[in-house]
Amino acid sequence: MNRVLVREIPQYIGNEVLLKGWVHQLRRLGKINFLLLRDRSGIVQTVILDPTIDLSKIDQESVVAIWGIPKKEAQAPGGIEVEVKRIELIEQAQSPLPFEVNRPLELLNIKLDTILDHRAFALRHPKINAIFKIEAELVHAFREFLRKEDFLEIHTSKIISQGTEGGTNLFPIQYFETQAYLAQSPQFYKQMMVGAGYERVFEVGFVYRAEDHATSRHINEYLSLDFEMGFIDSEKDIIDLEIRLLRYIFESIKKNCANELKLYEVDLPTIEFIPQIQFKEAREILKKYYRKELLTSDDLDPEAERLLCDYAQKEFNSEFIFVTNYPISARPFYTMPYDETYSRGFDLLYRGMEVTTGSQRIHNYQLLVNNMAKFGLNPQDFEFYLEIFRYGMPPHGGLAIGAERLTQQILGLKNIREASLFPRDRYRLVP
Amino acid sequence: MNRVLVREIPQYIGNEVLLKGWVHQLRRLGKINFLLLRDRSGIVQTVILDPTIDLSKIDQESVVAIWGIPKKEAQAPGGIEVEVKRIELIEQAQSPLPFEVNRPLELLNIKLDTILDHRAFALRHPKINAIFKIEAELVHAFREFLRKEDFLEIHTSKIISQGTEGGTNLFPIQYFETQAYLAQSPQFYKQMMVGAGYERVFEVGFVYRAEDHATSRHINEYLSLDFEMGFIDSEKDIIDLEIRLLRYIFESIKKNCANELKLYEVDLPTIEFIPQIQFKEAREILKKYYRKELLTSDDLDPEAERLLCDYAQKEFNSEFIFVTNYPISARPFYTMPYDETYSRGFDLLYRGMEVTTGSQRIHNYQLLVNNMAKFGLNPQDFEFYLEIFRYGMPPHGGLAIGAERLTQQILGLKNIREASLFPRDRYRLVP
Repeated sequence: MNRVLVREIPQYIGNEVLLKGWVHQLRRLGKINFLLLRDRSGIVQTVILDPTIDLSKIDQESVVAIWGIPKKEAQAPGGIEVEVKRIELIEQAQSPLPFEVNRPLELLNIKLDTILDHRAFALRHPKINAIFKIEAELVHAFREFLRKEDFLEIHTSKIISQGTEGGTNLFPIQYFETQAYLAQSPQFYKQMMVGAGYERVFEVGFVYRAEDHATSRHINEYLSLDFEMGFIDSEKDIIDLEIRLLRYIFESIKKNCANELKLYEVDLPTIEFIPQIQFKEAREILKKYYRKELLTSDDLDPEAERLLCDYAQKEFNSEFIFVTNYPISARPFYTMPYDETYSRGFDLLYRGMEVTTGSQRIHNYQLLVNNMAKFGLNPQDFEFYLEIFRYGMPPHGGLAIGAERLTQQILGLKNIREASLFPRDRYRLVP
Repeated sequence: MNRVLVREIPQYIGNEVLLKGWVHQLRRLGKINFLLLRDRSGIVQTVILDPTIDLSKIDQESVVAIWGIPKKEAQAPGGIEVEVKRIELIEQAQSPLPFEVNRPLELLNIKLDTILDHRAFALRHPKINAIFKIEAELVHAFREFLRKEDFLEIHTSKIISQGTEGGTNLFPIQYFETQAYLAQSPQFYKQMMVGAGYERVFEVGFVYRAEDHATSRHINEYLSLDFEMGFIDSEKDIIDLEIRLLRYIFESIKKNCANELKLYEVDLPTIEFIPQIQFKEAREILKKYYRKELLTSDDLDPEAERLLCDYAQKEFNSEFIFVTNYPISARPFYTMPYDETYSRGFDLLYRGMEVTTGSQRIHNYQLLVNNMAKFGLNPQDFEFYLEIFRYGMPPHGGLAIGAERLTQQILGLKNIREASLFPRDRYRLVP
C-alpha cells in the first residue's frame, strides 16, 4: 500500500489510506482518542475508536504509520477526520521534549537561543518551519526570473587569496602551507564572468564577513543572491531589472506560499513602482522632515534607513525605496563615478532596512587601475581580476540581495537569525 | 535602437539591427573586410564594404557596437551575413592577447595551467565556454527534478565546529577567538532537516576536502549536489530516484545544450536501466574477468572503477553501474548496516569513475550512538546532530553527486579542473 500525504487525503474519502508522519498531538479521552498526525504537507486529525489499538508506546513526536479511512467531519480541522484501523510505531520519541511544537509560538515564549540550540527540533513547529519554505521559494524565483532573462548560473570559489575590499573583515583559512580567506562576495568573479563572454550571470552562494558586532540584522555567513549584467547603459538598467525581479519573487511567494504567509499574517504588495531618490535628496529629506543628521555624512545609518522607508510609505505608499548616487567615498573602488562626488551606486531599502546594494561598475581598465590607487590598493595584488579588463570589458553593473534579510523583512521577523537555518555569529558555531 | 542578439538575427533579414559584442576575428582584405562578432548567444559574420568606416582602432577582442543589415549569404557561416553601416568602439582590447580564442582548441595546444591562469579570458573560447553552460543546465535540472518530487531546497552552514567523519581532511578557519572548519559535506545537516519535518531536502553547495594528493579527479573545493529523503524502505528507493534523476538531467542537457554537446562530439545516452552489482560480486568480477585484486579489500581503487565500467559496457551496454552493499568498514558511521559485514551504502560509477556516494542511514538513536563508539567517535561531540534522533527520526537515506566530476565525465574532460570555474587545489588559489 502506497503512502498518502496529508494534503492528498481529500481525494480518498471513504477509502483506506496509509499515512506516515509525526504524532503532533495525542488527546487520550478514554473511550475515544484523537491523534493529530503531521507530515511534510500538513496536519490531519485522526480518531481512534477501536479499544484494541494499543497507544501505550505512542508518544508525542513519535514517528508512526497509520492505516485508516478518511471521512468528512465538520467538527475536525479542515473538515476531514481519519478513522484509525491500525497504527504502527516506526520510531519512538523520548520525553521530555525540548519544548512544545503543537501550541502557538506566541504562547510558548521560547527564547531565540533556545530555538537555535534545538534547531532541527524547533523546525517541527509549523510557524518556524514555514520560514524556510518561503526562503526556498524566494531563491527559486530569483533563479527562475534570471534564467528567463538569459542569465547563466555560476559557482565561484569561496576560498580566495585577496579580499574584495582590501583586507578587512576577512576570516583567515589555513590552506595547506598558505593563508587564504573566505570570500566576502563573488564581486570580482561575477564581473570577470561578464567579461568572459557570458554577459549575464547570477550566483546563489554563501559569503562571509568577519564583522565583530552582534546585531539583529547581521550574521557572519549569509546567502548572497548576486547578479551581474553586461552591455548596460547605466545603473538604471540594473534598478529596472531589480524592480521586475522583486515583482516576480513576490508574486511567486504569494502564489506558492499562501499558507505560510497566512501563518505570519503577511499580505505582500504587488510591486508596480518603486520610488527612487538620490543620496543628497535623502539627506535633505531626513533633515527637513525628521530633523535627522546622518552619523557619517556619506552613508545611511540604521535610523536613517527606517526614516526614509517611513517617508516612502507616506509619500509614495511604497514599502520600498531606492537611494541612488551614493557618495563615492562610501562605495568600493570598482563603483562607476557619477560626478566628482557621487557614484552610480545605489541601495534598496525595504521596510526600514537595506536589502540590496548595487551599482554600475567601472569597465575601463585605466580608470579602474587609477581608482584602485586612489583607494590605497595595489593593482598588482588584483592582477587576476584586472586582466580581463585589458581585453575588452563591456559596460556592466549588478547587485547583491541578502536572502536572509529579505526573508526577515517579508515576514517581519525580529532577528535575521530566524531566517538562517544554522546561523553563524560571534558566539554561535553550533549546531 | 534596441540591441539584437546574434541568435535573433534571422528574424531581421533586410532590416537594420544594432549588434553588440566582441571582435572574434577581423580579416582585413583591403577593399572588403570581414569581422566576426561574438556575443553571449553566438557568432555572426559581418562584412565592411564601405571604405569610410574606420577600422584602425578595432582590434581582436575589442568590444564594439555594429549597426548593419542582415542578408542571406550562402557563403557565410550559418548562411547569414550582416553588412555593416556603422561601427563604434565601446572598449578597446590591448594586444597581444594571452592566446587565441578564435581557433580550434586542438590546434592551439594550450596547457591547462595557462587556461586556468587566464580563466576569464580563456572562457571566451567557445569550446571552453560551453562547459559551464552544460554545468549550469545539469545543476538546474537536478533542482527542477527534485522540486517536482516535493523536495525542499536548503542552505546549511559551511563553517562547522566538528567534521562529519571525525576530524581528518579539514581546512581550519580562524573564527574570531575559536578554531572552526570548512564543512566536508552537508551530511549531518541534511539528515537533521529530514528529522525537522521537511522529509525531503536537497542542497547545492560547495564542500571542502583538505586532501593532499593532486590528481586529475580531485579538487579541494567542489560543488556537491546533495539530497536526503525520509520514509524510505531501503537504499533501493534512493537508487531508484537517482536513476530517474539522471535520466531527467541527461534529457535536459540534450534538449537545452545541443550545440554545446556538439562541440565535444558527445552523444548522451537515454538512461533506461542501470545495472546494480553488490560489492562482493564486483570483487569476484574483477578477479574472474580482469585478474585484478583490490588494493584495499573493502574499497574500489581507480583501476577497479574503470574495469567495472568496462564490464558494465560489455555485459549491459551501460555507461553506468551501481556498486551496492559496500563493506561497513569502508563507510562512515551513519551508514545503515545490511548484515554483519556489509552496509546499505552504494556508489555509482560512470565512464570509469565514481560520481555518486549514497546510502540508507541509521535512524535509530541507540544504534547510531553505538555505532559512533565502534568508529572511535565520542557521541558527546556530536550532540547537535544526535538530538533530533531522540525525538522521532524516520527511516531515511540520500546521496551526493559531484557536479564537476559528472560534467567532466559527460564531456570526457581529461581533468576535473576544466569543469570548475575557479578550481582550488594544493597549488592553486588564484584567480
